[in-house]
Amino acid sequence: MSTTDLLESLKKESPRHLNELIEWLKIPSISSDSSRKTDVTKAATWLVDKFRGAGLSVELLPTQGHPMVLAETPPINGAPVVVVYGHYDVQPVEPLDEWITGPFEPTVRDGNLYARGATDDKGQVLTHVQSVCDWLASGKTLPLQIKFLIEGEEEVGSENLERMLPDLAERLACDCVVISDSGQYSDGQPAITYGLRGIATYELQIDGPSQDLHSGSFGGAVMNPAIALSHVLSSMVDANGRIQIPGYYDDVVELSTAEREAWKKLPQDEAAFAKSIGVSELFGEAGFTADERRWARPTFDVNGITAGHQGEGVKTIIPATAKAKFSFRLVPNQDPAKITAALETHLANHMPPGVRHTLTPDHGAPGMLADTESRFMAAANQAIEGAFGKKPVLIREGGSIPIVTRFQEVLRCDCLLLGWGLSDDNAHSPNEKFRIADYHRGIQASARLWEELGKLSRQA
Amino acid sequence: MSTTDLLESLKKESPRHLNELIEWLKIPSISSDSSRKTDVTKAATWLVDKFRGAGLSVELLPTQGHPMVLAETPPINGAPVVVVYGHYDVQPVEPLDEWITGPFEPTVRDGNLYARGATDDKGQVLTHVQSVCDWLASGKTLPLQIKFLIEGEEEVGSENLERMLPDLAERLACDCVVISDSGQYSDGQPAITYGLRGIATYELQIDGPSQDLHSGSFGGAVMNPAIALSHVLSSMVDANGRIQIPGYYDDVVELSTAEREAWKKLPQDEAAFAKSIGVSELFGEAGFTADERRWARPTFDVNGITAGHQGEGVKTIIPATAKAKFSFRLVPNQDPAKITAALETHLANHMPPGVRHTLTPDHGAPGMLADTESRFMAAANQAIEGAFGKKPVLIREGGSIPIVTRFQEVLRCDCLLLGWGLSDDNAHSPNEKFRIADYHRGIQASARLWEELGKLSRQA
Repeated sequence: MSTTDLLESLKKESPRHLNELIEWLKIPSISSDSSRKTDVTKAATWLVDKFRGAGLSVELLPTQGHPMVLAETPPINGAPVVVVYGHYDVQPVEPLDEWITGPFEPTVRDGNLYARGATDDKGQVLTHVQSVCDWLASGKTLPLQIKFLIEGEEEVGSENLERMLPDLAERLACDCVVISDSGQYSDGQPAITYGLRGIATYELQIDGPSQDLHSGSFGGAVMNPAIALSHVLSSMVDANGRIQIPGYYDDVVELSTAEREAWKKLPQDEAAFAKSIGVSELFGEAGFTADERRWARPTFDVNGITAGHQGEGVKTIIPATAKAKFSFRLVPNQDPAKITAALETHLANHMPPGVRHTLTPDHGAPGMLADTESRFMAAANQAIEGAFGKKPVLIREGGSIPIVTRFQEVLRCDCLLLGWGLSDDNAHSPNEKFRIADYHRGIQASARLWEELGKLSRQA
Repeated sequence: MSTTDLLESLKKESPRHLNELIEWLKIPSISSDSSRKTDVTKAATWLVDKFRGAGLSVELLPTQGHPMVLAETPPINGAPVVVVYGHYDVQPVEPLDEWITGPFEPTVRDGNLYARGATDDKGQVLTHVQSVCDWLASGKTLPLQIKFLIEGEEEVGSENLERMLPDLAERLACDCVVISDSGQYSDGQPAITYGLRGIATYELQIDGPSQDLHSGSFGGAVMNPAIALSHVLSSMVDANGRIQIPGYYDDVVELSTAEREAWKKLPQDEAAFAKSIGVSELFGEAGFTADERRWARPTFDVNGITAGHQGEGVKTIIPATAKAKFSFRLVPNQDPAKITAALETHLANHMPPGVRHTLTPDHGAPGMLADTESRFMAAANQAIEGAFGKKPVLIREGGSIPIVTRFQEVLRCDCLLLGWGLSDDNAHSPNEKFRIADYHRGIQASARLWEELGKLSRQA
């Protein structure tokens, strides 16, 4: 069986590929929700069964949190070893009432498959799973060894994997890690992502009076924790989106002229981009394009606030407590621990009198940059052009895959970030989707990638 | 039967008085909660039955919202007519988990009765209801006519009563309105309240992207509505509690030297006050005491904020929407409509680009000042000293009873604000309570007030 035959056979199997994705998406594997623990494990077990059915050697590896799925094809002498990394856990689904169809009732509309996890990351992970499983089923020899590492805690910071990675290093020894958890540049323009932002997330609680107070009897004499919270959040960023925490920009590496020039050639349409997300105009640091702001500038975002009365009607109180969840996106060379220290100092300096505050860092990870000149990058370029019919562009991505930098450090390998998603796929939002054609193109690109990588010799 | 006998007989009836209050407090008459509509009416009907049982002529008057209870004793030729105003509706009860016993399971602990509405205002209203009903039951003639007006919408702004008041003016014609919906100055120091703050409440919604966005893919290029909200709330008040809305202080009448001197003689203990509400230090406008800030300075308080992810764990989003509920306490001579106009201008000037905002004013009412030299005030002074064993002090109160200014305007009457509560009664908060001894002293003071007022002749 030739590779051309294999690509044809993958096309014929596309209805089954879609049905299997639908089946997997029905499992509500929300890793941050402790009440979903059983469902998270169920999603892992589904994948174990899929690998086992295709003849891979597979293990469900327990962690202190959710388990990881490890699977591998046989070693091929002299050929490269590739780790495919991805995650089977998904983001929470609130606000539920904004979903047109249920987040765990996968539904096809207008060529898209709608469900939580469709693009982030079950749908993208499954492109590689399908290409490998079908390759093995065809009886043709895979020209390289592939090791799958699919975890269940990416959306909560990958802490267990990060901790266990050194112990797994020998088992995961490889030349290159392949990750599909990002996007194409735009509809019809595939991309290879060579940079990711880092992240640092926090919860801040401000406590005032021991209980809610009547705003008439006490107002004017007591610091209101919700006002204190507004003041400190406001103090962290100015009206132009520039972060005001002293030291925050100290380690930021500025964009190179070459990168800025290359990105300027991308088919950017900021007005259309603004329209697609429903805002009248974009916003951000002066002197940067929207792509530069999203991919290569560090940011501050408030993810949620809760304080006092939020129900129907009026309740004239001074709330006892106000809380915010917020996050920074960091650029390569910024250290989350240094950012936390700078933040703690800033908060101590800006907290009004008469309230107490507690800052709880959640997770942090540095950003990442990959080698754009590697032979793996050249192979990916070939594979994507073959499957998508267009040369991919080289871009960065504003999201964070905290474990990627750790792979570079611990496994001393290259990284290929090959995203099949689109920017309007609603990752982390209601009505998440994955374009069905991109799912199938991703499977094709994956198979082509194994063929191209198989032509390379194993690194010394 | 002499008045002394009546006061003795009221004492003997105190167990029944307490049981009746407990019975009334069990009815969850939360006026702002549309799911409690039946309960609100049930609380009104309870009162109607109580009046009817005592032989008053009584009516349950429907409104566009919750009904009012109108009841009256027979007219007495040449004697004054007094309206007793109060409310049977109560505040919401969240956060429920902070209540030691259920808000609608009235419980006696340490000489206090705990329940939502215990002090605000069912318990205080019932002191006058009990004194009048028992007076009639004693067979002794009441030396004046008393008209009760007990409404069910005070906690949501008294809009229907305000609208209907001109039509009710003839029926409510009186010399003086008596209201017990405030407090004593401190434990053991009764007070007559001659001033109230006004109020203006709002909900502000800020909308950004059409749905929650991934903070990695979009962060840095889109205005975050929760940050926009923090900025505008922060812009409304400075770090010293001084409101920054242009024009906000224009109509504020400064405190007179005489008032400031009189208040300085009150037994103030700001450290103890701070401790009693669980804060390390008080806060507020420079140059004013805590009493001055609470009673006679206008304020800004955020009552609640809601935005983005508020549940367990991390959800790294740019929320589509952020909302705040906030309120101003106004001082006499400030006009809520002018404040709303100034606020609208301020918001328009301070709203960042890339978001849309909607300001919804809820209710507004001006503050109030009563005549401290009136013969009614002298009568109240006598009655309170008799019942509490101590001369009351003259104070203002920071809360708002929006309808009081309207009574002065429409009924052209005096107002007596005679509060039996204490500052730690937790009105509007979890574990609201009323000291049982103060409930019974209030009933005694009420009976003595009818006797004192009965000695006065009807105004021309």
